[in-house]
Amino acid sequence: MQDSIEETTDFRPKFGADGLIVVAVTEASTRQLLMLAWMNREALDKTLATGDAWYWSRSRQALWRKGETSGHVQKAVELRTDCDQDALELVVEQTGPACHTDRKSCFYRVVKTAENGARLVFKETAD
Amino acid sequence: MQDSIEETTDFRPKFGADGLIVVAVTEASTRQLLMLAWMNREALDKTLATGDAWYWSRSRQALWRKGETSGHVQKAVELRTDCDQDALELVVEQTGPACHTDRKSCFYRVVKTAENGARLVFKETAD
Repeated sequence: MQDSIEETTDFRPKFGADGLIVVAVTEASTRQLLMLAWMNREALDKTLATGDAWYWSRSRQALWRKGETSGHVQKAVELRTDCDQDALELVVEQTGPACHTDRKSCFYRVVKTAENGARLVFKETAD
Repeated sequence: MQDSIEETTDFRPKFGADGLIVVAVTEASTRQLLMLAWMNREALDKTLATGDAWYWSRSRQALWRKGETSGHVQKAVELRTDCDQDALELVVEQTGPACHTDRKSCFYRVVKTAENGARLVFKETAD
């Protein structure tokens, strides 16, 4: 019997004290990390039921279908959970850019360390 | 003048109320998502200073150099920040498996929906 959380086939997502679980969103065709977002139970259920990516906006304190205003929707291809089930990976087909700044990925800046402190460098290509 | 948080070249990581920031760890050669972890300021500074991946263990409440007991160390290739600087991507060269269960990635289980509820399927290959 596989009963440990790392080996079980039961899906038991661990939401935090705030009712949220973190989701790393990756692109199906390239594996590129597009964004990090948060889901509550309702966002997770709606994503599984509809195949569209739904999240919880911590800044707006509201449920949110990705792309509902921008049109930059995400079609859920696969949902994965990590070993201790306190983080998810949502593999998506992304329409348009994922980032609200119109970059493909939200991770468009690289940290470079300099003698006078860390600075950011923009890398706005697909990489 | 680029002053917005989305356009600035100042590295201003936003740690949460608990002093932590979430980090998606990806493999340099494949872009595969290996794990999600957390850093406090000290873990971030040590990662930038040494090139080894340091995290904060929420379960053990301790600073932790990845691989210090297992030998499965991570060499930091690139550190990225997202648009609103409340999440990081650490691109690494991974020695051995990233997951403490000896899988390459912590995300080795896929959520399958069924009429009697969501179940997990193991996908333990590199995919």
